Amino acid sequence: MQTHEQEFRQAQQFLKEHDQFLVVSHVQPDGDAVSSTLVVGWLLSCLGKKYVMVNEGPIPKRMDILENSEDIVDLSRQPIDETFDHIICVDCADFKRTGKTSLLFSERACILNIDHHPTNNGFGTFNLIVEKAAATAEILFDLITFMGIKFNLAAATALYTGLLTDTGGFRYSNTSPKVMETASKLLEYGVDGPGLSELFLEQMTFPQLKLLTRALNGLQMSGDGKISWVTVDDEDLSATGAIHEDMEGIVNYPRNILGVEVGLLFKVIDETAVKVSMRSAGKVDVARVAQHFGGGGHVRAAGARLEGRLDDVIRRVIEQVKAEL
Amino acid sequence: MQTHEQEFRQAQQFLKEHDQFLVVSHVQPDGDAVSSTLVVGWLLSCLGKKYVMVNEGPIPKRMDILENSEDIVDLSRQPIDETFDHIICVDCADFKRTGKTSLLFSERACILNIDHHPTNNGFGTFNLIVEKAAATAEILFDLITFMGIKFNLAAATALYTGLLTDTGGFRYSNTSPKVMETASKLLEYGVDGPGLSELFLEQMTFPQLKLLTRALNGLQMSGDGKISWVTVDDEDLSATGAIHEDMEGIVNYPRNILGVEVGLLFKVIDETAVKVSMRSAGKVDVARVAQHFGGGGHVRAAGARLEGRLDDVIRRVIEQVKAEL
Repeated sequence: MQTHEQEFRQAQQFLKEHDQFLVVSHVQPDGDAVSSTLVVGWLLSCLGKKYVMVNEGPIPKRMDILENSEDIVDLSRQPIDETFDHIICVDCADFKRTGKTSLLFSERACILNIDHHPTNNGFGTFNLIVEKAAATAEILFDLITFMGIKFNLAAATALYTGLLTDTGGFRYSNTSPKVMETASKLLEYGVDGPGLSELFLEQMTFPQLKLLTRALNGLQMSGDGKISWVTVDDEDLSATGAIHEDMEGIVNYPRNILGVEVGLLFKVIDETAVKVSMRSAGKVDVARVAQHFGGGGHVRAAGARLEGRLDDVIRRVIEQVKAEL
Repeated sequence: MQTHEQEFRQAQQFLKEHDQFLVVSHVQPDGDAVSSTLVVGWLLSCLGKKYVMVNEGPIPKRMDILENSEDIVDLSRQPIDETFDHIICVDCADFKRTGKTSLLFSERACILNIDHHPTNNGFGTFNLIVEKAAATAEILFDLITFMGIKFNLAAATALYTGLLTDTGGFRYSNTSPKVMETASKLLEYGVDGPGLSELFLEQMTFPQLKLLTRALNGLQMSGDGKISWVTVDDEDLSATGAIHEDMEGIVNYPRNILGVEVGLLFKVIDETAVKVSMRSAGKVDVARVAQHFGGGGHVRAAGARLEGRLDDVIRRVIEQVKAEL
């Protein structure tokens, strides 16, 4: 925290010297985005400020349990014809990520940009960017502690949710000693960590489980046991009643098979195009494979969109993965 | 720790004043049992003591990655015709849990009993029982810290493994602030937490995934969506090449469906008997259901063995669960 003291001080000053704020996060908000929005709102209420929390679209259903989540305005359903001078953006790696909420920024708007993405380009008037943080929630925990404000249970619960979801339940490589220490302090406030883990990481809808089962029935494995893949198409979705976001997580099943180096999920878009999600156990840089097809991502998680029929796309992707093995 | 200072002092004295030790844990050792055995061995080597680590049977294959795990003698394959005077039992709730390793205890044996199970009956000559600890690994962390000994990476890795496996990846209700704080300190020693999570919590063998898929294909749901169940029989095991322990975890799938209060796994033993594992989302006390059939367990996780054919057993169990709903 010491290394960012100047930024913490600036952020504090910005929050204290103005009276009315707009709090926004990125489009298709995840756990950290929603949690961070709510915690900034709570912090502003502690400071006696007026504020509006807005997102371009709806927040995920499960986030309903977080206090005041119903106060986050869904711009797609409830237009706002006002603009704001003082904006707080949380968890947005660049300006574009704020989506249509940026239409609410006035011409002379002053932006406080709080984020943890290493690719954040510092688009704010003031920037509090901590690359080492696993989640924006972690930065907010430090900011609020820096400001000497005591957490209540609702704020602590939101922050724990942000940490939990951005670290995949304390399993991703961003799970630092600091993450665990912060989680420990939040549990001290009475947060129901196990309950949040269950809700955000374990529960599935029935259609989601049916989709997973259907995908696993078609699981394929390369002869050497190093590449495994599943496919999902529109028929799978309609047969199970699942929705598009229910596909998330399926790719981990082929990837988690002992001995498998690369797990793949092929999503058929139509007769002429297929999206592929790739997960690596570490040896293969799937970002390179994705780039070969015009896609992108990280060493262990990447994706691309390919033109062609499913069979053809599978053949080409597997070939390219084999070249990297 | 203060509340157990006397026990910590006694344990330290026991370790320091003798020269040769037998270190044992419970039959069918889990992550915490193996880790705790290894860490006590490491601690004794730090103190310049002689010791033998023994278990009644083999340790789980995945534990191979823990340093010196190959030094834990599997008594079922490598008999020992010596007896020992100074014994350290880790993670054993009662004397019986030490299994056949107790044949190696001399008649005048002095036992140090280190454990976290609330049901531990204090069978040791000296007892270091911390009920609040999520894992024996947590107690050992405190004991070693109390003794002023600095962890090396191997010891820290073993302790993290114990914490990780006994808390279901920091998800069970025993995930206290203290657990997270301890995990944080262990990560500071350079432990690869994400790698251990992957190995112990996410990876599945191919036969294990095939068994899961087969079980999910037969998933059933009660009309009101509150009870869901799957079945596994010997044919499922032989068709998929899975082993008995691969069934573990399957019961969580029906249980994790949104809206389901009780998830059940029926394992057919033969034409006349079925074992049932029950998991509750919290509202139903499945221990009561299990007790009705002569079984037992906890509020949220219980099991029983019923005489009868599968169809009949399913009907009776569902009926009983419905009575508790």
